[in-house]
Amino acid sequence: MNMTMNIKTGSDLRSLVRSGKFNDQTAGQAPDFLQGNVVILPKEFASDFLQFCQNNPKPCPLIALSKPGESSLPELGENIDIRHDVPRYRIYHDGVLQEEVSDIETLWSDDLVTFVLGCSFTFEEALIRNGFSVRHIENKQNVPMFKCGIQTIKSGIFNGPLVVTMRPYKASDIPAVFDICAHYPHAHGTPVFWGNPADIGIDDLQKPDYGDPVFVAEDEVPVFWACGVTPQAAIERAKPRLCITHAPGHMLVTDVHSSKGIPPITGMQNFVENT
Amino acid sequence: MNMTMNIKTGSDLRSLVRSGKFNDQTAGQAPDFLQGNVVILPKEFASDFLQFCQNNPKPCPLIALSKPGESSLPELGENIDIRHDVPRYRIYHDGVLQEEVSDIETLWSDDLVTFVLGCSFTFEEALIRNGFSVRHIENKQNVPMFKCGIQTIKSGIFNGPLVVTMRPYKASDIPAVFDICAHYPHAHGTPVFWGNPADIGIDDLQKPDYGDPVFVAEDEVPVFWACGVTPQAAIERAKPRLCITHAPGHMLVTDVHSSKGIPPITGMQNFVENT
Repeated sequence: MNMTMNIKTGSDLRSLVRSGKFNDQTAGQAPDFLQGNVVILPKEFASDFLQFCQNNPKPCPLIALSKPGESSLPELGENIDIRHDVPRYRIYHDGVLQEEVSDIETLWSDDLVTFVLGCSFTFEEALIRNGFSVRHIENKQNVPMFKCGIQTIKSGIFNGPLVVTMRPYKASDIPAVFDICAHYPHAHGTPVFWGNPADIGIDDLQKPDYGDPVFVAEDEVPVFWACGVTPQAAIERAKPRLCITHAPGHMLVTDVHSSKGIPPITGMQNFVENT
Repeated sequence: MNMTMNIKTGSDLRSLVRSGKFNDQTAGQAPDFLQGNVVILPKEFASDFLQFCQNNPKPCPLIALSKPGESSLPELGENIDIRHDVPRYRIYHDGVLQEEVSDIETLWSDDLVTFVLGCSFTFEEALIRNGFSVRHIENKQNVPMFKCGIQTIKSGIFNGPLVVTMRPYKASDIPAVFDICAHYPHAHGTPVFWGNPADIGIDDLQKPDYGDPVFVAEDEVPVFWACGVTPQAAIERAKPRLCITHAPGHMLVTDVHSSKGIPPITGMQNFVENT
């Protein structure tokens, strides 16, 4: 599949994915539509993970949640089938990555629950649209990510450090950058910190835990956002027997306009046996 | 003023407050309308406090933010004047409570910024409406509040422990309670923890840091929510030269229906000098 192809809508992109004609990263595709991180867990872990997302909305902004066994996500698009519509999936057993696949129909079962979390593409596109370039995109790099010294709020079996991304900006631009991102609380929202990385337990900006190091100029300040890798780090620690996620950059592309608000998500009662 | 009087709308209540005819606690008044915690700070502290709210949306759900010197809050009601419309205010100098007053016109200045944060009345009324009684309301007590072992995300000069409230429920009721509260992310939303209080650093449920101890029956589990006293505790530590808040229980009553979603709040650019 040609990376330069320009797909306009989430629905178009998912059709191509489902028919095997698109298996690339989704950055820049269907740019007006919300893209999401995907986490699929067996029902017995769903109540703890729902609590983890609700307790830590900056790194884990929940935009949709399925009932057990339900493969559609009607809030995000009319014909979504989560078993086929993500360009690439990762399969974890006991917290360890086992393989990457392009379809999960054979793994599907009635007790699987799908969580979709907003992702940074949404605010990055808004920053660019407003004239604030994003360094790692300019440089065709991956965003640098760091396990920082801030802890998430523990929720059942899920806990661990807040993972943050870094994008450098001039100090005078930070208020405008902050206000642009404030429009997207469902996509990590405002930066959590800017200034001396050591203040949030980051020793060396040139040695990210994930992604690529990016250049920070002398007149720039490193600005840090909560990152959707945070739940992945918590899952690796919790070691559920099975977990399926999207592969990095290969997101679920939805039919929801990026600027639309996301209604509150409920569903705890679907994960607990009636007593 | 008679506590038993039933005022239907936020606008009606604020008229009574403004004319000096109502200076009581606002619980149960204008029950369909959002009530808010009020924090007023000089502009030089506003950027740090905005960051604190955005970083800690569970204890500090921002529902409105003014420009410096602006005493209206058009998003929350057509004719709100924050200098007159709160039944009782608290004045802090250098983090120390100095006095309680019923009007702040004489203290007002062009550099004051008003923050309004959602409050627990909203989800408590929803719980009661759905048949889940709230123990401290049943017992005509104040909700018990605890400084717990979870830390907020430090933001400029503001930091400190998460303050939580406790309401006991039967274990089998917790999923329904969780889902009801999930509808109100602008009012602390879902509980952050339930189970053994020691797991979040609370030694003795019968010795709350604020409010009254309440009875937990043998077949009940203590359930904890993030609390709007969290920012007050952070303000006491940060010691800004001036801070004005509502007095506990004496909230700003708005014209916004409790079930309505709150659009994202921006405003950082109003607090930083142009460079």
